[in-house]
Amino acid sequence: MEVAAGKYAKAGVRGITVWRDALEGRDPAAVGALLKDHGLEVVSYCRGGFFPHTDAARRQAALDDNRRVIDEAAALGAPLIVLVCGAHPGQPLEESRRQIVDGIAAVLPHTEAADVKLAIEPLHPMYADDRSAINTLRQANDVCDQLQSPSVGVAVDVYHLWWDPDLQREIRRCGEGGNLFAFHICDWKIPTTDLLLDRGLMGEGCIPIRTIRGWVEAAGFIGFCEVEIFSSHYWSLDQDTFMQKITQAYLEHS
Amino acid sequence: MEVAAGKYAKAGVRGITVWRDALEGRDPAAVGALLKDHGLEVVSYCRGGFFPHTDAARRQAALDDNRRVIDEAAALGAPLIVLVCGAHPGQPLEESRRQIVDGIAAVLPHTEAADVKLAIEPLHPMYADDRSAINTLRQANDVCDQLQSPSVGVAVDVYHLWWDPDLQREIRRCGEGGNLFAFHICDWKIPTTDLLLDRGLMGEGCIPIRTIRGWVEAAGFIGFCEVEIFSSHYWSLDQDTFMQKITQAYLEHS
Repeated sequence: MEVAAGKYAKAGVRGITVWRDALEGRDPAAVGALLKDHGLEVVSYCRGGFFPHTDAARRQAALDDNRRVIDEAAALGAPLIVLVCGAHPGQPLEESRRQIVDGIAAVLPHTEAADVKLAIEPLHPMYADDRSAINTLRQANDVCDQLQSPSVGVAVDVYHLWWDPDLQREIRRCGEGGNLFAFHICDWKIPTTDLLLDRGLMGEGCIPIRTIRGWVEAAGFIGFCEVEIFSSHYWSLDQDTFMQKITQAYLEHS
Repeated sequence: MEVAAGKYAKAGVRGITVWRDALEGRDPAAVGALLKDHGLEVVSYCRGGFFPHTDAARRQAALDDNRRVIDEAAALGAPLIVLVCGAHPGQPLEESRRQIVDGIAAVLPHTEAADVKLAIEPLHPMYADDRSAINTLRQANDVCDQLQSPSVGVAVDVYHLWWDPDLQREIRRCGEGGNLFAFHICDWKIPTTDLLLDRGLMGEGCIPIRTIRGWVEAAGFIGFCEVEIFSSHYWSLDQDTFMQKITQAYLEHS
């Protein structure tokens, strides 16, 4: 964490999203202070969610775990938690979707008390098996409409949503509802060789990142454009080189 | 082809879709006769499409090639051509979508003269980069509405469409429009390790095949349930064993 914070700051990066595994065994408040000392704004805490399960006890355990995530986010000083909502392959997607709405509603009081917000991240349909039953921005917007809470919004990630013919319209709707909480960028490589860990740097693929960023900003979003590149390839490189490539790609292609 | 025809017939399979590469260097009419002799109905010819391109000459070449596909289908005795519509990563999806509609419209007279039909197969969003800009059944239905031709319909493949929250409604719409021309089944494995060649046998994954088949039949479809399993794993097995697994999975899970 110390190394990352130092290098982010040196590269001119002004914000960071903290993944939960990076906090393991550490004091969230101390990590938050460390990041602040490096001039880094904590954009969000990643991740809560995974509400659906065929077993009620496991659904209850997920609620308890999400409350812990909320406490950690608050201690860290993260204003936002990204939700990967979950899906259970042993039940219909419709049932998982109901359980997601119920799950978010159940942790809402805890969220509000902790003064953090929740961002539903619609995931690409290729993750509908066991990662998220929320696969389009329309679905995420529908959940926001259903819950009607200022604490619940959406994280728009171009990797998950770029293919959607309704994307521009749903981004507008998301903004109008005051629900556009986060924006993630990377690129879709051709070919993509792994379903999880083969994301591209901006400019390496076919996602019209600038177009989508334009829609997001036209919808009123003024937050960070967060670069999120899951990639076995890039993670195996020298990480200073990777950081350099990221900042260059960010400036040239987003 | 002789081996496949013999084994399909012996396994009690009554229909077959012929892929274009299997016809290479062969006389389509003779292959059609061979299949008929084995009691096999030719369900469709696979595949036409790939209309979009940034270069007009390449779009023209695609039209010419699709006319050849139509001629081959007619000679083979296939009543239907499956269209993988294409997408060009060098242009916006919207442009590729326009070129798909234009491309189908351009080959329609040739299609009608040859007395074959065209089935638009919406492809999973993970193929929106360079395989198809038509990624939902709603989009395919919209194209059918736009073209208003009895020769243009849709191939519904559970692998591509199972995740779609609008699927039941759009299947109904597809049937009401008289556009439900083909139905393909297989399963989505968890985890899926390859974007193209890791499909599962029915029952091996999380797709509610029987539910979707019910929707398709309720929409008036009375054609073949075609098993389509692209899989490096299964293709590497003894193919008699694979055939046995397919027929068993078909009976138990579809």
